[in-house]
Amino acid sequence: MTNTGDFHILGTDGQARCAELTTAHGTIRTPVFMPVGTVGCVKALSPDDLTALKAQIILGNTYHLYILPGDELVARRGGLHTFSGWDGPILTDSGGFQVFSLQGLRKISEDGVEFRSHRDGSKHFFSPEKVVSIQRNLGSDIMMVLDECVPYGADKEYTAQSLGLTTRWAARCRAAYPQGSGNQLLFGIVQGGFFQDLRSESARQICDLPFDGYAIGGLSVGESKPLMLDIMRHTAPLLPADKPRYLMGVGTPMDILDGIEAGIDMFDCVLPTRNARNGTLYTSLGKVNIKRAEYKEDDRPLDPNCDCYACTRFSRAYLRHLYTARELLAYRLNTIHNLHYFLTLTHGAAQAILQGRFATYKAEVQAVHAHAE
Amino acid sequence: MTNTGDFHILGTDGQARCAELTTAHGTIRTPVFMPVGTVGCVKALSPDDLTALKAQIILGNTYHLYILPGDELVARRGGLHTFSGWDGPILTDSGGFQVFSLQGLRKISEDGVEFRSHRDGSKHFFSPEKVVSIQRNLGSDIMMVLDECVPYGADKEYTAQSLGLTTRWAARCRAAYPQGSGNQLLFGIVQGGFFQDLRSESARQICDLPFDGYAIGGLSVGESKPLMLDIMRHTAPLLPADKPRYLMGVGTPMDILDGIEAGIDMFDCVLPTRNARNGTLYTSLGKVNIKRAEYKEDDRPLDPNCDCYACTRFSRAYLRHLYTARELLAYRLNTIHNLHYFLTLTHGAAQAILQGRFATYKAEVQAVHAHAE
Ligand SMILES: [Zn+2]
Ligand SMILES: [Zn+2]
Repeated sequence: MTNTGDFHILGTDGQARCAELTTAHGTIRTPVFMPVGTVGCVKALSPDDLTALKAQIILGNTYHLYILPGDELVARRGGLHTFSGWDGPILTDSGGFQVFSLQGLRKISEDGVEFRSHRDGSKHFFSPEKVVSIQRNLGSDIMMVLDECVPYGADKEYTAQSLGLTTRWAARCRAAYPQGSGNQLLFGIVQGGFFQDLRSESARQICDLPFDGYAIGGLSVGESKPLMLDIMRHTAPLLPADKPRYLMGVGTPMDILDGIEAGIDMFDCVLPTRNARNGTLYTSLGKVNIKRAEYKEDDRPLDPNCDCYACTRFSRAYLRHLYTARELLAYRLNTIHNLHYFLTLTHGAAQAILQGRFATYKAEVQAVHAHAE
Repeated sequence: MTNTGDFHILGTDGQARCAELTTAHGTIRTPVFMPVGTVGCVKALSPDDLTALKAQIILGNTYHLYILPGDELVARRGGLHTFSGWDGPILTDSGGFQVFSLQGLRKISEDGVEFRSHRDGSKHFFSPEKVVSIQRNLGSDIMMVLDECVPYGADKEYTAQSLGLTTRWAARCRAAYPQGSGNQLLFGIVQGGFFQDLRSESARQICDLPFDGYAIGGLSVGESKPLMLDIMRHTAPLLPADKPRYLMGVGTPMDILDGIEAGIDMFDCVLPTRNARNGTLYTSLGKVNIKRAEYKEDDRPLDPNCDCYACTRFSRAYLRHLYTARELLAYRLNTIHNLHYFLTLTHGAAQAILQGRFATYKAEVQAVHAHAE
């Protein structure tokens, strides 16, 4: 018998771990990739498409759902699961990342952040307590605390001050939803920009608070890949080993494997879904730009090693035709394929960890991506 | 053992008939509605969606497929069935309707019609022989002859001359593909504008030629509903009773039932698919505009009497949310529902005819649409 929040490590290989996290809507096996379903729908897919893809958990964006259709409306529908028809686990972000991306439309204070809606310019305010309340309305399985996402390039003084604010906000989130008060989990977020000592300080402060999991935020915001990896590798081992670790909004297949190697358990990124809609597809043979003329008369499957619906049923020629003709089916098939790639990648990593051959697995994937990118 | 082209009437009720037409990719039970799959894809749907909907036959547009991806490319892929993954029967129009819609971009002569592509302005020429050759390349189960679609408002003299041209083109199409020369069927098209005597004359001329089926073209081009019905009812009984009759590009649910009543067997129209993408949905309770605020918190299924995927799985509130958020899934779900409505409508008509209660069936549907439109 497991309880919500239970985190059980099944095996390790170096720093990499394979574990199980129990949520109110099911148990997730990590490492796990979470498809992004911004407004309660993974773009172009139905809940049954996600089930067919064996997606374990999806992500919803608190900011977007608060704006449209509104968290209270979702609550009256019985929560995001009932509303959207997706019955598996859902993680919601805190909305912080989106709000801090609204350049010039937001104002930060100790109490929270005031911002204007990207849709109609209307004024809103997110406090730590408010984003917990919104996520309570949404009924997500994993809620995230409000944090300040420091822009890339912020100086050390600003970053240090911001780190303190993020900790105080995290404590307020926890206070608004004390541990054990419901079956939703709450994760803390470590910030600290691109300064190792500030990351250490933030990790110390955040990990002092009793969360069900700990995330690394503020990466993949414009910095170089080596810098991202450097900060990620520095921060990951500072998070408690007995709790799930979540690297927010990162990244490419190789970034994910680097994260797993450093001991990260959970990932989300818009790359597979957004790139699908741009015609950029991840395959076992490298990246494919399905728009290219070379695929015009190519009767082979997109990826001969993929058993997704798009690859088992259609040719590159047809996928290219659909994309060129801007047929809506193109977006669905491309999304199915790309998510299948990311989900298979993390599933394969879990298997490899349990079998003690993660390094080999990572090297094999790397070999493909090295010559493709 | 049936052969391609066999048309077997299973039952009649007044002028209405229920029949079976054998094609190279399966037997169709009529009355039948054919979803429009312009470029080898019914917009927003996969072939498996169509199978789940029990679609019997789909329509492809010769003009669009000729322009993109090109009929020769499709032929090299093994034809439209292999290319698109839809293994059931396909009817292709002749491209005439699209070409004649290219106002100012086309020039008619005895030999055929010269036109410019809507995509890149390049010059092309469709002769009767050319459109048969294109449809041979596409490998459709039912090909249509090239006809001149007379614009609404054309005078009697022009219409009479055009009718003769349409007949000569029909004869040339038949000569280019003599009966029995392959397993593709070829249908003739009756024109004659909005003049009963010209419709009679066109029917006489076209029905003198040995086609596998006969269509009524040139309706639903801007005329009033009573005029459309008048010409349709005048023309339908002039077509051979022992061959399939096809009313091209018409229409609303009531138009279709009016057509069936007059003895029409086959229908196609963009209404269900196009309206789906505009948020206008056909239900057993009347038309629903899913955008309307009244559905914001409506937890009921779109149509309580519908067992389609959209109605059994989602609420009006969620469908409205998806549509409002411009989520691609909205287009797929709406299309599934609307096609389910049209396909169920014609399937129900077939059952009603076999049970000798078509008039009652039509009256029941009419009662719903009368108060809804
Ligand atoms: Zn695939
Ligand atoms: Zn339905």
